Amino acid sequence: MFLLIIFTLSFLFSSYNALDFCVGDLSAPQGPAGYSCKKTEEVTVKDFVFSGLRVAGNTSNHSKVTITPAFSTQFPGVNGLGISVARVDFSVDGRGLMHTHPEATEVLIVIQGTLCAGFISSTNKVYLTSLHEGDVMVFPQGLMHFLINVGKSSALAFASYSSTSPGIYFMDYAWFANDMSTDILQKTTFLDHDQIKKLKGVLGGTN
Amino acid sequence: MFLLIIFTLSFLFSSYNALDFCVGDLSAPQGPAGYSCKKTEEVTVKDFVFSGLRVAGNTSNHSKVTITPAFSTQFPGVNGLGISVARVDFSVDGRGLMHTHPEATEVLIVIQGTLCAGFISSTNKVYLTSLHEGDVMVFPQGLMHFLINVGKSSALAFASYSSTSPGIYFMDYAWFANDMSTDILQKTTFLDHDQIKKLKGVLGGTN
Amino acid sequence: MFLLIIFTLSFLFSSYNALDFCVGDLSAPQGPAGYSCKKTEEVTVKDFVFSGLRVAGNTSNHSKVTITPAFSTQFPGVNGLGISVARVDFSVDGRGLMHTHPEATEVLIVIQGTLCAGFISSTNKVYLTSLHEGDVMVFPQGLMHFLINVGKSSALAFASYSSTSPGIYFMDYAWFANDMSTDILQKTTFLDHDQIKKLKGVLGGTN
Amino acid sequence: MFLLIIFTLSFLFSSYNALDFCVGDLSAPQGPAGYSCKKTEEVTVKDFVFSGLRVAGNTSNHSKVTITPAFSTQFPGVNGLGISVARVDFSVDGRGLMHTHPEATEVLIVIQGTLCAGFISSTNKVYLTSLHEGDVMVFPQGLMHFLINVGKSSALAFASYSSTSPGIYFMDYAWFANDMSTDILQKTTFLDHDQIKKLKGVLGGTN
Amino acid sequence: MFLLIIFTLSFLFSSYNALDFCVGDLSAPQGPAGYSCKKTEEVTVKDFVFSGLRVAGNTSNHSKVTITPAFSTQFPGVNGLGISVARVDFSVDGRGLMHTHPEATEVLIVIQGTLCAGFISSTNKVYLTSLHEGDVMVFPQGLMHFLINVGKSSALAFASYSSTSPGIYFMDYAWFANDMSTDILQKTTFLDHDQIKKLKGVLGGTN
Amino acid sequence: MFLLIIFTLSFLFSSYNALDFCVGDLSAPQGPAGYSCKKTEEVTVKDFVFSGLRVAGNTSNHSKVTITPAFSTQFPGVNGLGISVARVDFSVDGRGLMHTHPEATEVLIVIQGTLCAGFISSTNKVYLTSLHEGDVMVFPQGLMHFLINVGKSSALAFASYSSTSPGIYFMDYAWFANDMSTDILQKTTFLDHDQIKKLKGVLGGTN
Repeated sequence: MFLLIIFTLSFLFSSYNALDFCVGDLSAPQGPAGYSCKKTEEVTVKDFVFSGLRVAGNTSNHSKVTITPAFSTQFPGVNGLGISVARVDFSVDGRGLMHTHPEATEVLIVIQGTLCAGFISSTNKVYLTSLHEGDVMVFPQGLMHFLINVGKSSALAFASYSSTSPGIYFMDYAWFANDMSTDILQKTTFLDHDQIKKLKGVLGGTN
Repeated sequence: MFLLIIFTLSFLFSSYNALDFCVGDLSAPQGPAGYSCKKTEEVTVKDFVFSGLRVAGNTSNHSKVTITPAFSTQFPGVNGLGISVARVDFSVDGRGLMHTHPEATEVLIVIQGTLCAGFISSTNKVYLTSLHEGDVMVFPQGLMHFLINVGKSSALAFASYSSTSPGIYFMDYAWFANDMSTDILQKTTFLDHDQIKKLKGVLGGTN
Repeated sequence: MFLLIIFTLSFLFSSYNALDFCVGDLSAPQGPAGYSCKKTEEVTVKDFVFSGLRVAGNTSNHSKVTITPAFSTQFPGVNGLGISVARVDFSVDGRGLMHTHPEATEVLIVIQGTLCAGFISSTNKVYLTSLHEGDVMVFPQGLMHFLINVGKSSALAFASYSSTSPGIYFMDYAWFANDMSTDILQKTTFLDHDQIKKLKGVLGGTN
Repeated sequence: MFLLIIFTLSFLFSSYNALDFCVGDLSAPQGPAGYSCKKTEEVTVKDFVFSGLRVAGNTSNHSKVTITPAFSTQFPGVNGLGISVARVDFSVDGRGLMHTHPEATEVLIVIQGTLCAGFISSTNKVYLTSLHEGDVMVFPQGLMHFLINVGKSSALAFASYSSTSPGIYFMDYAWFANDMSTDILQKTTFLDHDQIKKLKGVLGGTN
Repeated sequence: MFLLIIFTLSFLFSSYNALDFCVGDLSAPQGPAGYSCKKTEEVTVKDFVFSGLRVAGNTSNHSKVTITPAFSTQFPGVNGLGISVARVDFSVDGRGLMHTHPEATEVLIVIQGTLCAGFISSTNKVYLTSLHEGDVMVFPQGLMHFLINVGKSSALAFASYSSTSPGIYFMDYAWFANDMSTDILQKTTFLDHDQIKKLKGVLGGTN
Repeated sequence: MFLLIIFTLSFLFSSYNALDFCVGDLSAPQGPAGYSCKKTEEVTVKDFVFSGLRVAGNTSNHSKVTITPAFSTQFPGVNGLGISVARVDFSVDGRGLMHTHPEATEVLIVIQGTLCAGFISSTNKVYLTSLHEGDVMVFPQGLMHFLINVGKSSALAFASYSSTSPGIYFMDYAWFANDMSTDILQKTTFLDHDQIKKLKGVLGGTN
């Protein structure tokens, strides 16, 4: 009888082919819902693990902060599953510049250090606070937020997002680090001409 | 036999109570999916029509542009249906300042005039163009966009959104028209102290 | 230091590859969520603009109304973004025949003219009204609606939909403009045999 | 040690309060996502079972078919869970009249009898077939479909829907069983005046 | 004039290309939302009908129950439409073993026989009942449930699911019918070593 | 002119009332999409921060692991935003017992220690690995997974979930820690009578 059970099972399960997961095949077509799925028989446990967040990102940059993403492009195992994460490293005085995630809500988990954190609602209200080790804070989808290391040593946080491709969208870079015309920027923000020109210089923008 | 048909129908349809629509009851609890539904027997055709976009908005303001929303708060008939609209009026030289809709994609329909329009992707690329009467342009969810009336007369457009509560989120107002601290703004943007102070003065901000 | 900033940025942003948008590639596989995405590096601002609604549709047809769609097939820039639009032109006496959008709610924006508009709920209630320039009306998903130009001149409206592929589904054409058997139509509607035969003749149907 | 385990569990699980289900409370506010949830402590297994489909519906009506729904209004246990069912009884010659479900796809399961079944796509193509005991057929969301008992005895089918409130939307009743004006119907369909008047008489409509 | 109507229609409808359905092409890429769509011109009514549930499944197995699925892999017509079904056959004393559907809520329709049915919530409460012919019961997404034929003859039920790929996930098989290490099972369940070893023997597991 | 700007803004923004967030009001009706929203004017930054994960959970229990949730019930700021988190503490030899989250995918972030981790797919394949500090692993929705502290000291991880109410569903507790009948368990699992009775004793179950 045991043989019968086993036989029936093999037959049974081969025909189900459930879509438990859809590990992204980065070389196949991508659609609005994400990457195409890697064939299930080629999927291994390695697809579900990402080790790229083990080491601190290099914070030798202007803002002394680095965000290291584990989105579906870096970590195809989350493709189609509606969630992703990132590591955020802060040197002393590190500042996570004003940014949004156009496609996701973020929950930040503070692992080490003390942060000043805030976001601004679409009715222009500022929600500002201090975060300590073990605190979590939510930044609702699409709203500008920022983080400042206000402690005396480096800080570390992990962020999780309600999308596998949340985007990281820095306002300064979007305005000053490309070929956006100074004239248009002047007309569509309240910023002064000289300020725009100066920041285009700093961030490598043109026009 | 006709009587029988009619009788059966009455019985039949009273029991279905389909959720064809959910006109918002602004005085009842609101949840993540929108307002509570007005009772179906109290719903009339007036709930599905909004006349608040008939007349041009007042453009006697600094940017010479006014956005008049027909979101679920103004137009409860769209509650729960995933779509809303707004009217956008431009005086000569009117400028739709840099903004996002945190919760929605926008499709703009140009009714009158010539606009310079653009948006910036989260990889900082600028997509810039001119729009003429009858043109439609899509601004993907959460991305900063702007519009400038570059014609010689006033302009008019209608915008539709993939949400009943898209939000209208102006970067300048979010930064300068509230109590956001100048110190934090300076640390989390590349803006200069004097620029920030000046714009807080212009837009009524403090701190 | 400026060089360092720029270097860091290049590194930073090339690795994000956010799915801000998914311009439809009409030659690649299509899935339940829409068309496959065009490669980001091949996307230009032209993909986000559609000029096919600039001119009035030809209304020299029986109903004196033409709907010109800007759905994802005509306007691949909206692919995956949950919204699309159409232009609706009415000659004098033009009638937008009874139809549904199986996949979308519609919001109609009246640009010019006076329309009689209505829809019928699934509990068979008729919601009927007059619309004037600037009025907007919502037709909930899947419900039959109609529009009649009751003004003295031509009329113009734009419709936006809560789907990139809403469908336009005319009841008459679905019944009479194909090979649907007269016998089945007679059995599954209350229509008379002669009426069915006549309308099949008018609309080019067979059987 | 066993006591400790049990104590820990009580503590553990009381704090989770998972939203496994949301049995509809028909007397509390209803929102776009469905009814408010009955308190979990008042939910019993009876909320998850519906016995109203045990007996055949009365088919002594004109079309000799009755659809008995188990939607969220009749069967609040499915509220919020995205699925519902109905029982469909056919007498000899019974005809499931042309209808749509504005909010759902249907899968029909034939339990007894032989049916002629079909649907019409939004490109006006007819998909027509015969169904036998044990066959299942899918009717995509919002498309008109119909069923005819073509066997020699009564027939029985169950339908399942991809919504808890799919709606049942008969075209004839929507047109003729209410106060819809004959004039408007004539203008927005191809139907003749006499046909409309006759069917309003049959189905109890006015105007 | 009739010719004109027909001409206009041909032009009209060819350009819509609505996504009414997306019959799965099992040989093309699969994404998180399902299979790629078969070309509309190759779709026939056969794609929307599945006859594989006509005959009873073979219940000559240990549990005397067989579930025959009509998921998107077996029945590509439901691809993208959010619903699927299965047939469940019970011999006398047949037992539908403890299982979940990781991706779907199930509604069970009892066609013949008497079943003991139950599910367990994530707060560990058991919801247990008897089901008779015509009863329907809902098993909320992801919760373990079971069915026992407690009548004197064979039983038959149909299940519908709120997903086209619900998965069928038997706890016993997941634990004992593969290479899962006995040591790990012992550490992560309360089961005894001998019990695990015995059941691995029964179900063909190793390690 | 500055006064004018400010005046216009006040008028503008008071009328938008965007649904940027929906902080849960735990005393108001709950629907399928989550809790009702707290009034925006009563929301403060405290609603968006949760400090309950600062300290390690008490691991003096049988499995030497405690999961401390920050779901919408504990942390109402995430209500409606599709994401939540939890803290997982492991003593030496701590074991996260076999469980699922019926409503969510999980991404685990290892902060300290070395874990053996795995999950089982619905085709019964085991995906097993070792995780080190900084590794992240994804457990797809509804699939059983487990974690064992295989290092020499305590371990710490944070989990994020693609739902605000993911549920934590331990198989052992669902089977043995309630009034589930031994007879039914025996019939619907492969477990032996004595094993069931013993574990009911251990976990406080009856019947």
